[in-house]
Amino acid sequence: MTRLATRLTRALDLRLPIVSAPMAFAGGGALAAAVSRAGGLGLIGGGYGDPSWLEQQFAAASGERVGVGFITWSLRKSPSMLTDVLKYRPAAVMLSFGDPRPFAEEIRGTGAALICQCQDMAHVMDAVEVGADVVVAQGAEAGGHGALRGTLSFVPEVADYLAAHAPDALLLAAGGIGDGRGLAAALMLGADGVLVGTRLWASTEALVKERHHRAILETDGDGTLRTSTPDIARQLPWPRGFTARVRRNAFTERWHGREAQLEAAVAVEGPRYRQAFEAGDPDHTAVWFGEAAGVIHAIEPAGSIVERMAAQASARLRSHGGADLA
Amino acid sequence: MTRLATRLTRALDLRLPIVSAPMAFAGGGALAAAVSRAGGLGLIGGGYGDPSWLEQQFAAASGERVGVGFITWSLRKSPSMLTDVLKYRPAAVMLSFGDPRPFAEEIRGTGAALICQCQDMAHVMDAVEVGADVVVAQGAEAGGHGALRGTLSFVPEVADYLAAHAPDALLLAAGGIGDGRGLAAALMLGADGVLVGTRLWASTEALVKERHHRAILETDGDGTLRTSTPDIARQLPWPRGFTARVRRNAFTERWHGREAQLEAAVAVEGPRYRQAFEAGDPDHTAVWFGEAAGVIHAIEPAGSIVERMAAQASARLRSHGGADLA
Repeated sequence: MTRLATRLTRALDLRLPIVSAPMAFAGGGALAAAVSRAGGLGLIGGGYGDPSWLEQQFAAASGERVGVGFITWSLRKSPSMLTDVLKYRPAAVMLSFGDPRPFAEEIRGTGAALICQCQDMAHVMDAVEVGADVVVAQGAEAGGHGALRGTLSFVPEVADYLAAHAPDALLLAAGGIGDGRGLAAALMLGADGVLVGTRLWASTEALVKERHHRAILETDGDGTLRTSTPDIARQLPWPRGFTARVRRNAFTERWHGREAQLEAAVAVEGPRYRQAFEAGDPDHTAVWFGEAAGVIHAIEPAGSIVERMAAQASARLRSHGGADLA
Repeated sequence: MTRLATRLTRALDLRLPIVSAPMAFAGGGALAAAVSRAGGLGLIGGGYGDPSWLEQQFAAASGERVGVGFITWSLRKSPSMLTDVLKYRPAAVMLSFGDPRPFAEEIRGTGAALICQCQDMAHVMDAVEVGADVVVAQGAEAGGHGALRGTLSFVPEVADYLAAHAPDALLLAAGGIGDGRGLAAALMLGADGVLVGTRLWASTEALVKERHHRAILETDGDGTLRTSTPDIARQLPWPRGFTARVRRNAFTERWHGREAQLEAAVAVEGPRYRQAFEAGDPDHTAVWFGEAAGVIHAIEPAGSIVERMAAQASARLRSHGGADLA
């Protein structure tokens, strides 16, 4: 078993500095529990707020120490959901995509670690202001929702900001981290660990249809794009500035760049999109993964993925990435 | 003096695995020579091909061992320029943004190292096909021209491709690398070194107007965007798929998203853009730097920048990025 201790593992009592992204729909209790059992911290995806689904997923985590993540702008519409979920005693609560102020105090009051995911420096300032225990610097490579900054440049800039303004806050890198090389690079950039989405989406525990899983194995890192089209089709009022990274497919070919037309046709195209999603069709609905697809070649148990990521990172760190410093 | 040896330093006989990006207009002979003197390899920016400017810049490099880089699609319009420049015996020639096939043989015939800069996997396949000695994986964080992939996910994917198809080819990471943390991260991702643009644009030797230099010091990493507007204003026929990362300013505020209108108004706006550039105005012309701006706080001699980048990388590598592996 690999040992890889950082400020994050010490603060959150983990063995490995790997946290699973709380992916809406895909990140359920079984995945979160598997990541925690492997030594990281699993986060259940709170998504758009379905209380009975969340109850099932906390049950599926069967007593493992896990956390949960919310889409902040969506949570504002049903804030009681946070209160309900806090009854499950999550180890951490992540807020992403919106103002964390309305929820920070309630979360910290339960003893859960407050994780704020950030896509630009203004978000980081908000996170520091609410006293986030953990700041996630999420780059544009990430699958699913995100924004424009690249992970490699964003993480050290955030590290500098935290060093100056909140030196006890921990920093996770997110976006494009698909193996131990990405984890080792994140540590070099000044992060205390990583938040992993796409690589764990491609796990046996993720709640992902089989043909969607097959699609990631056939796609390299060039085969994704950032687009608003899935949100338009689902009529989800995502705030300006956030787009979703998904696989390039027949759906995005047809509608990306024709957003106004999709909006006009949504009475027909919306149900069509949802039916395709339910049916597991990988062509006529969004398939949610990021640029890390280029280093993913198998759907595997989450525990193996986490352990191998840590072992590879440890080996890269020990060998100084092949450099000779003598 | 820091020692940091990799496959790149051994193959190209360098002390440090740092190559300067051949920035059009900004990367002249004094900058290239300073980078080479500091132990890296400086590349003069061939830009859009002005033979007398290039002659001056090779003279300004005053006998230091330097290389040169070209914008490949532009070079195709005046291929004799390559023949002329090869007479200066550059140590390396970098081709970027276009098909390297027409030029690869002539370059390799002189003994110069052939460097191919790539923005997606199709470019990497082309680079391998022409037998590139060095492949640059350039991420979207980069200042100036580039494309969409993020550096952190692109580099390991390219490393895997090279390991399978051209194991002797060397790999440089580019895009968003502003200090030693970025260099150390690049090595973890599987690169043999880095290509540095923005951080060296912010050097005393770079051919950059003073108010443009001041602008980078006032800008964080969020303050740039990718846009076609500078190319439209200059009437440069850049191929589809490449955009320029520049500072967000009055020019981009006015025209980004209104490309058709800029094109229609170019008889007036083109000269206005060029006059502003000549005058050193940082608001009404493009200011060419990337997301690494967020970790840049001073305009300094290139030699100090290179040496500190290497020293910081070496320290990060020695300390395993703060991780405890025991």
